[in-house]
Amino acid sequence: MSRDRTTPGSGGESRAAPDLSEGPACPVPLTDYAHVLLAHGGGGKLTQQLVQSVFLPQFKNDMLSPLHDGAVVTLNGVRCAFTTDSYVVSPIAFPGGDIGDLAVNGTVNDLAMCGAVPLFLSAGFIIEEGLAMEELRSVVRSMRSAAGRAGVLLVTGDTKVVDRGKGDKLFVTTSGLGVVRDGVEIAPARATPGDVLLINGPVGMHGIAILSVREGLEFEGPVRSDTAPLNDLVRVMLEACPDIHVLRDPTRGGVATVLNEIASSARVGMQIEETAIHVPEAVRGACEILGLDPLYIANEGKVIAVVPADAATAVLESMRAHPLGRESTQFGYVVADHPGTVLMKSSIGATRVLDMLSGEQLPRIC
Amino acid sequence: MSRDRTTPGSGGESRAAPDLSEGPACPVPLTDYAHVLLAHGGGGKLTQQLVQSVFLPQFKNDMLSPLHDGAVVTLNGVRCAFTTDSYVVSPIAFPGGDIGDLAVNGTVNDLAMCGAVPLFLSAGFIIEEGLAMEELRSVVRSMRSAAGRAGVLLVTGDTKVVDRGKGDKLFVTTSGLGVVRDGVEIAPARATPGDVLLINGPVGMHGIAILSVREGLEFEGPVRSDTAPLNDLVRVMLEACPDIHVLRDPTRGGVATVLNEIASSARVGMQIEETAIHVPEAVRGACEILGLDPLYIANEGKVIAVVPADAATAVLESMRAHPLGRESTQFGYVVADHPGTVLMKSSIGATRVLDMLSGEQLPRIC
Repeated sequence: MSRDRTTPGSGGESRAAPDLSEGPACPVPLTDYAHVLLAHGGGGKLTQQLVQSVFLPQFKNDMLSPLHDGAVVTLNGVRCAFTTDSYVVSPIAFPGGDIGDLAVNGTVNDLAMCGAVPLFLSAGFIIEEGLAMEELRSVVRSMRSAAGRAGVLLVTGDTKVVDRGKGDKLFVTTSGLGVVRDGVEIAPARATPGDVLLINGPVGMHGIAILSVREGLEFEGPVRSDTAPLNDLVRVMLEACPDIHVLRDPTRGGVATVLNEIASSARVGMQIEETAIHVPEAVRGACEILGLDPLYIANEGKVIAVVPADAATAVLESMRAHPLGRESTQFGYVVADHPGTVLMKSSIGATRVLDMLSGEQLPRIC
Repeated sequence: MSRDRTTPGSGGESRAAPDLSEGPACPVPLTDYAHVLLAHGGGGKLTQQLVQSVFLPQFKNDMLSPLHDGAVVTLNGVRCAFTTDSYVVSPIAFPGGDIGDLAVNGTVNDLAMCGAVPLFLSAGFIIEEGLAMEELRSVVRSMRSAAGRAGVLLVTGDTKVVDRGKGDKLFVTTSGLGVVRDGVEIAPARATPGDVLLINGPVGMHGIAILSVREGLEFEGPVRSDTAPLNDLVRVMLEACPDIHVLRDPTRGGVATVLNEIASSARVGMQIEETAIHVPEAVRGACEILGLDPLYIANEGKVIAVVPADAATAVLESMRAHPLGRESTQFGYVVADHPGTVLMKSSIGATRVLDMLSGEQLPRIC
């Protein structure tokens, strides 16, 4: 096995203590963890650092580099989108869905965000010994129903069982395959100053739905996950404007994280209006009680589109005419100033930086 | 959620007790489990029953039906192979490999068994909080090295972290994408009476390697996993005979399980010679001590080919000329008699049925 790369942090516990014997030294960088933390899976800065320090150095290639929701590869001249996501949500069933439809919709959406028509899915099940067969059946029925709704076929799969206490009921990994539409070229790096930011409705529902059932909390009214397949919505959007620059679903890490990733990838700035993003009353209430920011909460049925200004009205109208886009809004735009930084004008008129979180607000929400 | 199917066994614990109040009744079928057992993941009859009772009723479609190592799908006229496998091997490192090269080789091999040229892989990582970063780096290095050896690119991935005690260090799910060679048509159902069975070398090494390190056992000499990418070996075999009928890698469940699956799928019988299958001395010794049958032990670098008789010599020669096929043998043939049943002539001349196991001999070997 080749060991040709330096391995920072491999010697110490948690973080290596700075060596003070040689006088003042730079602080040990925060990336320098000897063990994986829960926060490394939270979708924030630590996840990014894990990917950049552990995975990318080994797997750097043209297709992986864009760090999009999926890869676009060419098979005998056909442009295909190929994606994968592991689902470890806890609990496996929650208001509005379960790990089954979440896994199908999530992978369908990742393909849609590549501008592809989703066609085929695979599913790998890692089951903890002792899972009730009826719980498994129920998840599989949800997957069938979600696949039917999205118009995709599950064509291959795998099942593993791990000992009791070595898993957590059920983990599902779905991969997806689709054909990218002709003339469509979606990439985070295409965000261009002047582009307009659109979103198809209220934010924060999925994360708060999970949290409410997990912690047994009751907020002002029930919050249901927004999990939904976005491929048909994306279809009408691309019919309205095939030149949409970027599509991303703000899942783990929420709207704020996705905007930061696009801004950083395209080296552009972003300005958004807090009042133009709809946060349902129950989500807002839950966030206030728990000290969370709804812009960092995961969604599973939302798409952020970065659209050329002259097409914004047409795309927005196409979204509002679709059942999954009735509450679509334009909530900001791309600017040349402050590249890599997202600024938000708050409801009271102040402007603040919407930074990436370093860890997770809510672990295991997808 | 639709609940349109009966759900046997959902009411009781483990197995429903037979209702004796109405006089003699049929025994409760063995499939009727209320909870998932470790054995459901063992690759034997129980795994088959789980797939057939829980997954297939929901996902039956033309591509899924063959229950092959992967699905062959058509994307804009291009025949692609698409596969997925979740790896939960424990421990994650073992003599001859680790979960990283196992996951890459396993998926490369599943694509090769479809007659495809493997091209692109995805990887989903489910990491238990607290995993040493250096262990993760080491696995990722193995994956890079295995991908390089097989000539495939890892193009997309996902990372999740679960709480301590809710996983087991690291689970990896790899999916693969490849293009099926023109004129090649590989399917278990194509096994035809008269066909010859070939295998590329000794069996049982992977399972015994895992067992030896897991249980701290020492056998007559060290046993290393045979994990290896078989795509180049399959390439030369298909050059020798593009009309190979079936290719399967005897992983979980071993040679015996794969032969039973092919025999059942093609409704043919099989006759094999025990003496023509090479079992290394150390594997044989370990099996004798532990009461295991080497023909049910997992391999990760072996291929079973079902080949038209007139091409057998050419294919066997092409295998023996390849570094991964030097010890290839012809070990049996397909017959019209006793469809669905595999008969083995033992070294002492007796003939016995090589049945499928109901559960697993060794859990979590891949």
